[in-house]
Amino acid sequence: MERIEGAAELQRALALVRGEGRSVGLVPTMGALHAGHLSHVPALRARVDYVVMSIFVNPLQFGPGEDFQRYPRDRERDARLAESAGVDLLFCPTLKTMYPPGAETVVEVPGISADLEGASRPTHFRGVATVVTKLLALVRPDVASFGQKDLQQLLVVRRLVTDLHLGVDILPVPIVRAEDGLALSSRNVYLGPTDRKAATVLYRALEAGWDALWAGIRDPARVERAMAAVLRAEPRARMQYAVVRRAADLSRLAFLDGRLALLVAARVGPARLIDNLVVEVSEDGVRETTL
Amino acid sequence: MERIEGAAELQRALALVRGEGRSVGLVPTMGALHAGHLSHVPALRARVDYVVMSIFVNPLQFGPGEDFQRYPRDRERDARLAESAGVDLLFCPTLKTMYPPGAETVVEVPGISADLEGASRPTHFRGVATVVTKLLALVRPDVASFGQKDLQQLLVVRRLVTDLHLGVDILPVPIVRAEDGLALSSRNVYLGPTDRKAATVLYRALEAGWDALWAGIRDPARVERAMAAVLRAEPRARMQYAVVRRAADLSRLAFLDGRLALLVAARVGPARLIDNLVVEVSEDGVRETTL
Repeated sequence: MERIEGAAELQRALALVRGEGRSVGLVPTMGALHAGHLSHVPALRARVDYVVMSIFVNPLQFGPGEDFQRYPRDRERDARLAESAGVDLLFCPTLKTMYPPGAETVVEVPGISADLEGASRPTHFRGVATVVTKLLALVRPDVASFGQKDLQQLLVVRRLVTDLHLGVDILPVPIVRAEDGLALSSRNVYLGPTDRKAATVLYRALEAGWDALWAGIRDPARVERAMAAVLRAEPRARMQYAVVRRAADLSRLAFLDGRLALLVAARVGPARLIDNLVVEVSEDGVRETTL
Repeated sequence: MERIEGAAELQRALALVRGEGRSVGLVPTMGALHAGHLSHVPALRARVDYVVMSIFVNPLQFGPGEDFQRYPRDRERDARLAESAGVDLLFCPTLKTMYPPGAETVVEVPGISADLEGASRPTHFRGVATVVTKLLALVRPDVASFGQKDLQQLLVVRRLVTDLHLGVDILPVPIVRAEDGLALSSRNVYLGPTDRKAATVLYRALEAGWDALWAGIRDPARVERAMAAVLRAEPRARMQYAVVRRAADLSRLAFLDGRLALLVAARVGPARLIDNLVVEVSEDGVRETTL
């Protein structure tokens, strides 16, 4: 596995790869790698010849008072995990590479960014859209993978790639969960043992939403109440939202039908956690699906 | 000369050109071509093998009440001029190509956009930055040329290309002037004969700034007063600004030295016109230069 920090060095390495006619995939991460991240590598490998993983803890997507400073960083552990997962090139740009002196350009996708995560974290998606545009311009991958756990982020990225004609296929990668249902997240390390148990409430809330759909409920308010009831019953959790939306654009629905996303966010102890479930609702019933 | 409207067709044509190992240049325009635009073609030809010109009247860079509707459009005349100037491919995207249904992504360069033209036209540079990012992503030229007449736009584009790692060289192209000094502009067609004569006041104001520098004046306020006096003496003109700034970033200076830009904007009859002069001031004196 190659390890590269500089933009020019990256582009030299990728020019060689492309010169051999090999296609390139990119997994953008903030490091603190877990099995969720690592599952992107075989998913991309099925589509491209050469897999680049980037690690960059992007200050622009953290708000004031958020966890930018304490976000877990262990570059050597990440490098070992990336190599063992089969990454070909690990790109760890410096702050100066991603934000050169005087840098001020921002990319925004206002509509899809406004709600849910954007309501709690007003500058978050501007930071995401800006850094993703830069990474896609630097790497120019044929395919880039984004985890479905950050569903709204995935939709922001899809939208900006289409709008700006970036010419890259976006590959959604399913959520990886612990045995008790907790979605893997780098922020799970903030959880002590009691909070770790309590954190399963997010997945249990999604299951309650699923059960409501399964029981034939098609009124979004009733499904949302079923999820909220589970979150509110957990004293260590503070619910931020529990909603059911159209999966394609997170717009509100009056009647639940088609591809839907159940989305929850809550603070559990020191961590802010999110989770979601994408389902297809039809006359035949309910089934889990992907974006 | 090839003429193309669609993004997919454009990319097929350019893939063939690149497959032959030929480099690509882009002149982005809004049409209504004049000798200023056409001078980009030989300037680019000296740097690349294949010259693409785009024509797109970008609604996003016009404010409410501006001249989007009446902006001069004559596609057949433009095509003849482009072909005779030696353009290889004329790309005339439709509105739907540049702004696909649901498009909402915007690119902003807030600092350099805030002042001067940005103060008069608050959403103008957001429109420019967004459409230029899209055009550069679509065409992926090795070199793109921008006219120095729109000096602040040129600096916005340079900044976003650096910040977003778009990997394209930006080639500034000098202003082309009529014999009486008026900078060529598509908006000059709005001028009747009397206003056309009065419009030379912009260049005369720049000359007054130049004369002040030549006389050894290094206080920006005095140079700006000299330019403003000329503009105010023309009854058909309404001055918008007359300033001298550092050329590299349009920042204010307390003492004039190094590479400077004299910039003026005024309404003359029905047209809003801008002009500028880039000069190098040193112990040896004053000389005209480029960005």
